[in-house]
Amino acid sequence: MIHAMNTDPHSDPLFELGQIIGPKYVLTGADAAPWARDWTGIAEWSPLAVLRPANTAEVAAVLKLANRHRLSIVPVSGNTNLVKGTSAEGALMLSLDRMSAIREIRPEARIAIVEAGVIIANLHGATGEHDLIFPLTFGARGSAMIGGALSTNAGGSNVVRYGNTRDLCLGLEVVLPSGEVMNLMSELHKDNSGYDLRHLMIGAEGTLGIITAAVLKLAPKPRAYATAMVAVPSVNAALALLNRLQDETGGAVEAFEYMPRSFIEAYLERFPEARPPFDTSHEVNILVELGARSPRDTTPGPDGSVPLAAHFEGVLAELFENGTLLDAVVAQNSAQRAEIWARREASAQVLRMRSPVIDNDIAVATDRMQTLLERIEARSTAIDPGILNTGVAHLGDGNLHYAGFPSVSDPALHRAIQRAVEEEVIALGGSFSAEHGIGLSKRPAMALHKDKAALGVMRAIKTALDPNNIMNPGKLLPDA
Amino acid sequence: MIHAMNTDPHSDPLFELGQIIGPKYVLTGADAAPWARDWTGIAEWSPLAVLRPANTAEVAAVLKLANRHRLSIVPVSGNTNLVKGTSAEGALMLSLDRMSAIREIRPEARIAIVEAGVIIANLHGATGEHDLIFPLTFGARGSAMIGGALSTNAGGSNVVRYGNTRDLCLGLEVVLPSGEVMNLMSELHKDNSGYDLRHLMIGAEGTLGIITAAVLKLAPKPRAYATAMVAVPSVNAALALLNRLQDETGGAVEAFEYMPRSFIEAYLERFPEARPPFDTSHEVNILVELGARSPRDTTPGPDGSVPLAAHFEGVLAELFENGTLLDAVVAQNSAQRAEIWARREASAQVLRMRSPVIDNDIAVATDRMQTLLERIEARSTAIDPGILNTGVAHLGDGNLHYAGFPSVSDPALHRAIQRAVEEEVIALGGSFSAEHGIGLSKRPAMALHKDKAALGVMRAIKTALDPNNIMNPGKLLPDA
Repeated sequence: MIHAMNTDPHSDPLFELGQIIGPKYVLTGADAAPWARDWTGIAEWSPLAVLRPANTAEVAAVLKLANRHRLSIVPVSGNTNLVKGTSAEGALMLSLDRMSAIREIRPEARIAIVEAGVIIANLHGATGEHDLIFPLTFGARGSAMIGGALSTNAGGSNVVRYGNTRDLCLGLEVVLPSGEVMNLMSELHKDNSGYDLRHLMIGAEGTLGIITAAVLKLAPKPRAYATAMVAVPSVNAALALLNRLQDETGGAVEAFEYMPRSFIEAYLERFPEARPPFDTSHEVNILVELGARSPRDTTPGPDGSVPLAAHFEGVLAELFENGTLLDAVVAQNSAQRAEIWARREASAQVLRMRSPVIDNDIAVATDRMQTLLERIEARSTAIDPGILNTGVAHLGDGNLHYAGFPSVSDPALHRAIQRAVEEEVIALGGSFSAEHGIGLSKRPAMALHKDKAALGVMRAIKTALDPNNIMNPGKLLPDA
Repeated sequence: MIHAMNTDPHSDPLFELGQIIGPKYVLTGADAAPWARDWTGIAEWSPLAVLRPANTAEVAAVLKLANRHRLSIVPVSGNTNLVKGTSAEGALMLSLDRMSAIREIRPEARIAIVEAGVIIANLHGATGEHDLIFPLTFGARGSAMIGGALSTNAGGSNVVRYGNTRDLCLGLEVVLPSGEVMNLMSELHKDNSGYDLRHLMIGAEGTLGIITAAVLKLAPKPRAYATAMVAVPSVNAALALLNRLQDETGGAVEAFEYMPRSFIEAYLERFPEARPPFDTSHEVNILVELGARSPRDTTPGPDGSVPLAAHFEGVLAELFENGTLLDAVVAQNSAQRAEIWARREASAQVLRMRSPVIDNDIAVATDRMQTLLERIEARSTAIDPGILNTGVAHLGDGNLHYAGFPSVSDPALHRAIQRAVEEEVIALGGSFSAEHGIGLSKRPAMALHKDKAALGVMRAIKTALDPNNIMNPGKLLPDA
């Protein structure tokens, strides 16, 4: 029996979307499954569809249609975020993965012009051919894309020298919630022409529009690296070492990463084939990397020694003599350098190797990190004496990735520990959200700790730019 | 005869303002005169009154009152801006000059916490005691204040190494148009907690609120400077020199300032007692300054030479040999360094020594500066064959301060030249506003050249945050 169709296919949004971007780029059901979960595998959702537009004009048309039908849009690029920022129950996920062109690299001006779907590691490869670097780097660089890095203002391991993603961006192209295309693709180092909408869009987590292209700053590739694992008596001693090295080298520290004994032990448990950094185990282990920029740093002296490396080893030897350095292993080649980095870059797996885990991405001024660690230990063990506290820190910029493995399975107790950690961060003038962003996971902390006037301004801006609340609704901003 | 008063003094806004900040800090008439004109003396206005609040709470109360009475507020700090950004006909000028405390300098964390009324030179003095610098510097530093520098995202001579004012700011306190106080006084290098309202307020020229305090980044004071005037055959040759020096020194260039022959001649005309930089005059004169950060740059070698200076002079000698350097004078002491800088810092006077002047604060990518200069010469002389073109440029960051002295007094012709210059800047992907901001003067250019979608977003934000349009009305945004 044949039924008369009582719906016009042209009023079906998915049909219309197929008209805009091509039906094969409107994915549903099993085709959409790779986007229907986050990187940790813990969070899952059922998107209405996944859209894979080819260019900015298609993105613009999709947003116009979404406004007309009041459909929610969740932008996604590499989908490596850790705060459920791409969760999309019933929403249209808009993937930037097909917009992956590196449009231009201009070595003289030290800029790259890229589309949002460029994978960060691919940009590293392309800039390397010009002896330049795009300095942003973190564990997920092999799948994370520029668009997501910009939308979340990603940080990583080299912030101490190069800043966060926003510091590496000169210009942006953004599709506004209305579907208008905003061209802010400035290549300039000075451009005071009205409100800085670039910085407003960077870190907005896709709630104010979709970043489709960017002008990025490049830096000269260091002529050589000096990389070491060192052990010192305390976190404050590590900071003294950092300041000493910055002073001695004219600011050549590229990375300064803290790993406590508990992290090294967890790493060796998770990767039994791996080697410990030292013969003896130490409480405070630091990965330090220097990058040489001047030929005076790398031109071998009469004795054949490389000035930066010799200087570095000289400082370490002096500190070893006076007891402020307990141990040190300096990489002698790139394989040893890679082994040192592998330990640090396994942290995303190591800190999630047990469940449940209380994890926090927090920041304090560097001179308050030791106090923070002491207070976290005190507060968390007061709540759960059997808790195992660990973590890693980008000590050079004050960012701690805390992980606590509680001894009992009790969500209320876990929340209490989470809350206690955040309270100590706030008491020390720190932030409950350093580099991973807010997404869904941090909205309660945002509601509790963010300045109320600032929240009011954010809500006013969101309402002004996205009156139908189609862009990544329910993320970043807590309910009023 | 005694008249009955038929106005209640308590409904007089100036009386109420006196109640808030003290009557003696509500200035009118002759007392207000120092604020009733801009630095150039060309623009004048009659403010309703000048208010000099003592603290943030008073600023907040003033803004609440201004909203109630729908009074316009024009914030002012050093009043050194060049785009009529503080013109205040009939408005309340709110001067931050009494809020001048340097609250704290934390050398270990390399931050300064200051109120908006701190004069930049005073902060230089205070940070110098800790062997640190606040790197922002420009000619008006002896009267310009931090609040104005932040509100306009001031640039200056050291942007090539340290960035603009926004790059030197970690946190802000802002009184919103509503009178609410927004606390964004973060001391952190990573703080992804919602929209970046700090960067929205920086450069908003007081149209979205009043910046009352800030957390600023400090940098280590260079161990030594190497400063020189050099002459090269062309602007492109100057750029090649810049890139060579950056490469040779690992990025130690602090300033790289271009002065054409016409500027040197105008300077010697304006300051007859001054000396020319070279015995012979040259078309392309460059002030270059390097800052040494590492002890390896400054520890004298066996022959007593300072490595950075020796290296610098070695590069210059090599370029002189191969003909890409025409002349060079290296400062041998701080008096010679001061003489070299005095020439550059006189530019604000030199470029305004004749009237009328067509002046423009514009930017292009550094690799397009020579083309821009050639096109300006061609376009302007086509309109006025007798025009004298001059200017100075922060060549290291692509910012040109163009000045044209037309041969005839004809406002329509002047506007045509102004327009032609801007057209060439835009055609080269540049900006009609580099570091001085928009104020009143650049609103026509803003209307003509700024991306329309961006203007729409700016207007939506302005309306959302300042619905009564009390904050510096008529500045920055062109009419819709």
